[in-house]
Amino acid sequence: MSNSLDRALRERAMKVVPGGMWGHMHAKDLPEGYPQYFARAEGTKLWDVDGNEYLDFMCSWGPIILGHHHPEVDAAAFAQYQRGDAMNGPAEAMVELAELMVELIPHADWAQFEKNGTDATTTAATIARAGTGRRKILVANGAYHGAVPWCSPSLIGVTAEDRAHILTYDYNDIESLNAAVAKADGDLAGIIVSAFKHDYGKDQQLPTVEFATAARAAADDADAALIVDDVRAGFRLSLGGSWERVGVQPDLAAWSKSIANGFPLAAVTGNDRFRAATQSIFTTGSFWCGAMSMAAAVATLSILRRDDAIAHMERMGTLLREGLASLSATYDIPIRQTGPVQMPLMLFDDDADARKGFAFCSAAIKAGVYFHPLHNMFLSAAHTPGDIARALEAAELGFRSVRALTPATA
Amino acid sequence: MSNSLDRALRERAMKVVPGGMWGHMHAKDLPEGYPQYFARAEGTKLWDVDGNEYLDFMCSWGPIILGHHHPEVDAAAFAQYQRGDAMNGPAEAMVELAELMVELIPHADWAQFEKNGTDATTTAATIARAGTGRRKILVANGAYHGAVPWCSPSLIGVTAEDRAHILTYDYNDIESLNAAVAKADGDLAGIIVSAFKHDYGKDQQLPTVEFATAARAAADDADAALIVDDVRAGFRLSLGGSWERVGVQPDLAAWSKSIANGFPLAAVTGNDRFRAATQSIFTTGSFWCGAMSMAAAVATLSILRRDDAIAHMERMGTLLREGLASLSATYDIPIRQTGPVQMPLMLFDDDADARKGFAFCSAAIKAGVYFHPLHNMFLSAAHTPGDIARALEAAELGFRSVRALTPATA
Repeated sequence: MSNSLDRALRERAMKVVPGGMWGHMHAKDLPEGYPQYFARAEGTKLWDVDGNEYLDFMCSWGPIILGHHHPEVDAAAFAQYQRGDAMNGPAEAMVELAELMVELIPHADWAQFEKNGTDATTTAATIARAGTGRRKILVANGAYHGAVPWCSPSLIGVTAEDRAHILTYDYNDIESLNAAVAKADGDLAGIIVSAFKHDYGKDQQLPTVEFATAARAAADDADAALIVDDVRAGFRLSLGGSWERVGVQPDLAAWSKSIANGFPLAAVTGNDRFRAATQSIFTTGSFWCGAMSMAAAVATLSILRRDDAIAHMERMGTLLREGLASLSATYDIPIRQTGPVQMPLMLFDDDADARKGFAFCSAAIKAGVYFHPLHNMFLSAAHTPGDIARALEAAELGFRSVRALTPATA
Repeated sequence: MSNSLDRALRERAMKVVPGGMWGHMHAKDLPEGYPQYFARAEGTKLWDVDGNEYLDFMCSWGPIILGHHHPEVDAAAFAQYQRGDAMNGPAEAMVELAELMVELIPHADWAQFEKNGTDATTTAATIARAGTGRRKILVANGAYHGAVPWCSPSLIGVTAEDRAHILTYDYNDIESLNAAVAKADGDLAGIIVSAFKHDYGKDQQLPTVEFATAARAAADDADAALIVDDVRAGFRLSLGGSWERVGVQPDLAAWSKSIANGFPLAAVTGNDRFRAATQSIFTTGSFWCGAMSMAAAVATLSILRRDDAIAHMERMGTLLREGLASLSATYDIPIRQTGPVQMPLMLFDDDADARKGFAFCSAAIKAGVYFHPLHNMFLSAAHTPGDIARALEAAELGFRSVRALTPATA
């Protein structure tokens, strides 16, 4: 497994990009053996610049939901590009996409489009403030809602005032949510909840029905907005929004990542209660009306519905989860698998420094399977039972590698 | 000139998009006769959904700098897409683009990429704060630096704390700049300056050498960052950054719009003084490593350099400016043309309500030429002397329309 071209690019990048790379795709946070630079992608496969092939379980950290280069999505996107993409206004695809989202998503009376997930969460918070005339936004401790000062996981370059109206609660903890509402002291604009708890390196938690119901009630009692951040999970758990599964409708939701199978796009949807507020705020971006991404999104969402793709991802995710559980039992190495099966996270017991997780992933990547040790992974509609079988073979090498690390426990 | 399909789309959109549209591309802010929806674009031409053809002078509000569907840009972008776009990390194109920007832009020791102009300005402000450990950012009154709470032109949904560390000065006014620095009282992180003053509906002003030099000195004296917001003007005035023309190098610059001829991309460039600060902050986005836009940017910047495209845009802009001045004299209707010729703005004297500007543009759009009455316009490298001649014919109809509005002044 050569990596000389990857190393050469990293050296070139060190000169012209601070730290060689930024953000969540920086390979410095990944186990030994992971490439930084990719040359090619097709279906569920990726090739790095040295030609090494990987069966992928990150799906570009979410965007790829139908597999790379889905022919129908690409055809729709490029037909639109050949007509026009960035023009002096939107194309018909914008209306089609908004209509489709209103049709698919029960709470949505309208949609509006952006480019980043952070654009969508920031816009939703601004709408909540505009609509209520109040200021406080509740966010869960440890939740990721974007990478700008009001929500960034880092405080470097962030001022105290950027967070002046952010109050926190613990996910799935009704008491802490109500305490945060009380702390807002009549100034509550909105409550942001992740689709489920998917904090980096922690066991995932689906929302309980009780918590979701309490969050809805707390927003209603305070006449505030309930905002579901569906950027990461959107369209993988339910085409109608992830809180469909717990029977709760938000007022506003933020979408991005998988909405257009890799083409850059984000969206906010909302109900009529926040329509006027949305119209009242100013938000815009140079590329937000780009028609290629919108045509790709119409195709992506249509295919997800037609092919019942979520059920397929659940079946593949269940196969993977059951296979990993079985290997864990065989090797007597306890693991925790949490969250929805189509967004898998596997953490090892007694692994605070992630030594086991890294050893597992290093072995798998050498066997050509791209897992992540700490961030939830993503399945796509392109994953097949054969892919899962191959992934489990690599996982077995991973478990052996973990066994080699630690004294035998059997 | 039919507009029935445009009207039908506007009606559909009113149901599923708040206000039917958002942001700077909303046709409600444009004169009568302007379409909202576009079907096709090629070179310097646009077609609306009803098939009406326009010779375009907005270039998608900036992004289109080589004309729509420049064959070399499209070929580079699609070759990259066919290999891979949104992958688990960047492609080699990211390194190539950073190297090219470092080569072209004198202040740039490094580059980092985003999707929106607002991402770039926000990142630059965060880097300035991280690098200095201070908080205040100086912005010019009336300047546009993006559409999020810290810089949005609207205060709806924005809290006072979002602006707590923003201080203002008047563009090209050294005294007001120094007063703002004094007001920062030792807490100055950065001074943001637009490439030139291009506030909506106001006469444009190029920076004076004295002002630019004073801004550089003020930043140096305070050990703060000088940040040029080159989002709107970047690569149209100078490939090395717009303040090249006044002989001043910033510490940081924000780029977007024309960087990839319409493909969505933004960038921050900076000098080594801010390299470590840039590495220290957390900023990221799901699509920021998308390789198609980066390949498009490498092609766009390479072609701009090879073809000496800025000189061509200046020649075409000069033809347009001289032609408009001549028409103004012929019809004895005084106008003001300000700013760089390749980003033209024409305002009528005694036109506070823009009645003349709207009448002018309405006449031109009916003649198939897409001008803007209040926002600066954009030329591209695709504009030809024939295009300018055609534009001037439409402009003559515009002047006649203005003459019909007002009592004869001669």
